[in-house]
Amino acid sequence: MAILDIETRGAVAHLTMNAPERLNAISDEMLEALQTTLDRLADDPNIRVIILAGTGKAFCAGHDLRQMTAMRQASDGGAAAFKDLFERCARVMARIRSMPQPVIAQVHGIATAAGCQLVATCDLAVAAEDTRFGVNGVNIGLFCSTPMVALSRNIPRKQAFEMLTTGDFISANRAQDLGLVNRVVPHSKLSATTQALATQIAAKLGVAVKIGKRAFYQQLEMPIDAAYDFTGQAMVENMLHSDTTEGIEAFLEKRDPNWIQ
Amino acid sequence: MAILDIETRGAVAHLTMNAPERLNAISDEMLEALQTTLDRLADDPNIRVIILAGTGKAFCAGHDLRQMTAMRQASDGGAAAFKDLFERCARVMARIRSMPQPVIAQVHGIATAAGCQLVATCDLAVAAEDTRFGVNGVNIGLFCSTPMVALSRNIPRKQAFEMLTTGDFISANRAQDLGLVNRVVPHSKLSATTQALATQIAAKLGVAVKIGKRAFYQQLEMPIDAAYDFTGQAMVENMLHSDTTEGIEAFLEKRDPNWIQ
Amino acid sequence: MAILDIETRGAVAHLTMNAPERLNAISDEMLEALQTTLDRLADDPNIRVIILAGTGKAFCAGHDLRQMTAMRQASDGGAAAFKDLFERCARVMARIRSMPQPVIAQVHGIATAAGCQLVATCDLAVAAEDTRFGVNGVNIGLFCSTPMVALSRNIPRKQAFEMLTTGDFISANRAQDLGLVNRVVPHSKLSATTQALATQIAAKLGVAVKIGKRAFYQQLEMPIDAAYDFTGQAMVENMLHSDTTEGIEAFLEKRDPNWIQ
Repeated sequence: MAILDIETRGAVAHLTMNAPERLNAISDEMLEALQTTLDRLADDPNIRVIILAGTGKAFCAGHDLRQMTAMRQASDGGAAAFKDLFERCARVMARIRSMPQPVIAQVHGIATAAGCQLVATCDLAVAAEDTRFGVNGVNIGLFCSTPMVALSRNIPRKQAFEMLTTGDFISANRAQDLGLVNRVVPHSKLSATTQALATQIAAKLGVAVKIGKRAFYQQLEMPIDAAYDFTGQAMVENMLHSDTTEGIEAFLEKRDPNWIQ
Repeated sequence: MAILDIETRGAVAHLTMNAPERLNAISDEMLEALQTTLDRLADDPNIRVIILAGTGKAFCAGHDLRQMTAMRQASDGGAAAFKDLFERCARVMARIRSMPQPVIAQVHGIATAAGCQLVATCDLAVAAEDTRFGVNGVNIGLFCSTPMVALSRNIPRKQAFEMLTTGDFISANRAQDLGLVNRVVPHSKLSATTQALATQIAAKLGVAVKIGKRAFYQQLEMPIDAAYDFTGQAMVENMLHSDTTEGIEAFLEKRDPNWIQ
Repeated sequence: MAILDIETRGAVAHLTMNAPERLNAISDEMLEALQTTLDRLADDPNIRVIILAGTGKAFCAGHDLRQMTAMRQASDGGAAAFKDLFERCARVMARIRSMPQPVIAQVHGIATAAGCQLVATCDLAVAAEDTRFGVNGVNIGLFCSTPMVALSRNIPRKQAFEMLTTGDFISANRAQDLGLVNRVVPHSKLSATTQALATQIAAKLGVAVKIGKRAFYQQLEMPIDAAYDFTGQAMVENMLHSDTTEGIEAFLEKRDPNWIQ
């Protein structure tokens, strides 16, 4: 298998990070594979939902510290390389948000540092009940400043600050209570539960989900009046789509829609 | 009864949406009645709290899909009419936030799409325990893009995204856990509980509540330093009101205040 | 003891508000003592964590209403003095956020109005299980407009609005559920639990915590793309610190770090 395995089942693309010996670290190669693959899937009209999982004991344990340490050999001590690394990482996170398809994290084992950031960045997350989440870079002297961008937009601020400064792990159930994951299931049901959620969403009208996801993140950053102007336009665009006409007519006639999409 | 019934009990105005055969759909007539009535109540110094409820099986099931479908007959396929509709709807939502009086949603049955948006927009919400909440337009191909503006400012983003893309309903208890409603009670106690909450707030100094509600939504959209500048001015305005002088003196003298308000 | 007692245990500074006969009201003297002490501690490299507690029955019951009432004697009815008071209070709150060290509220008894604001403003909070929290100024005609700036950035908006307009208290467990406090313990364990949390954080690399805390509040107010640019720079700065180099190398070599910090 490649470092990022891609399998398509119906309209759902399963991406599996596959560097188990390094706990699926977000290495240069992993970042490149994620960026390239997501860019390609964004243009694939047959894919309606994406699942992101990992092989081995961990979902993802964050950046590749050996690679980062090697970057220190440069004459600037690594400054330029680190800047470039965090920019590439942020681009992957932005790519997840800008995908036309919902992206679901399927999480098990551990999700720490940039691995926890991946979970927070995905639109939805399903976790095995034995998963542990942490932004524990502070334990080795590297505060999880980029992961906190995503984390602090998922959970309340005092709880985010506690995780960031104590380095403590939280359980899957606690992550669910705080808002970081949508569902927690026994490990044996993780794959099936995530697939069922993906299939459910894949059955919706794709263009409606696409319009909605794009509007979701944009309106979140607007003042409320601007958000209504913006989403009002999204509603008009959505209403004018012929499949939406059919969807509403079918509902009024109490029959199933015949969507061309 | 009119499409929006208005009854005043003491300082509390009870608005009841009254189109039960259409599950209190937010039709052109309902929007017009809400806008006109709220505009009038905003200027009524005798009204201190407003309750918004619905007759029949549902609190409100969202926009009127038959009316919207009829709008498609226009030469532009309805584009101008849809734009106008969502603008009128957003104005009613803005009116609720800008009312000087707190507005409490009294919710039962179902609150879906723009009906769920109404609940999210009201300052407070009390729900019967059998209420189901959803932003399920995605099921008919119309993503709830405008409802999500209010919803995503009430509950965590992953949980909002899940409701929007799955179309699943959530229970009243789940809505309370997520922050969408304040209190959940048996249906038999819904009216009395909402009335008691309204009466409690109506007994406060009206000008203080008015200053506070106006500041609440404005400061939420400001950087924190600007929010303190703004609310500091609100505190000064509040302190200079003669009834506040009396309220503080009464407290220091351990007696009840004699408010003129 | 002074109005603000200061005791240092290792790298932890314990600040104790000490005006129990006035329920540790945020008087002019208390504000001045907080500002001066925090300014000094911000420059003290030996202090890594600060605990803020109170003597007597209450953590803090808010502003000093007798002092505020006395301000009304001025020819402008107190307008200038009130404005100055809320500016000084906001500066103390801003100072807590801008401290390089995490500040933990150790809360017991009651935390009301500006006392509740202090809890919401601190980075972390540990509460005794019998603590009651409220923003109950509305009961005396003075809406808690400045406390709501901090409160509404800690808990969901409908729950904040309810506290502000009803004046009702909430329990420590409810405060924890809403996100206002991190931990709730029996009163007998309050001091030890807070001290243990402080000691845990004080053992981290100070410069990493300093970089992280500064970035935390700034990125929260940015659009997400800008937040990543900003925190990416914080990560680079953190990576280039020699103690972080040692921390990462020690981790890769499975040994404890030798930090100079």
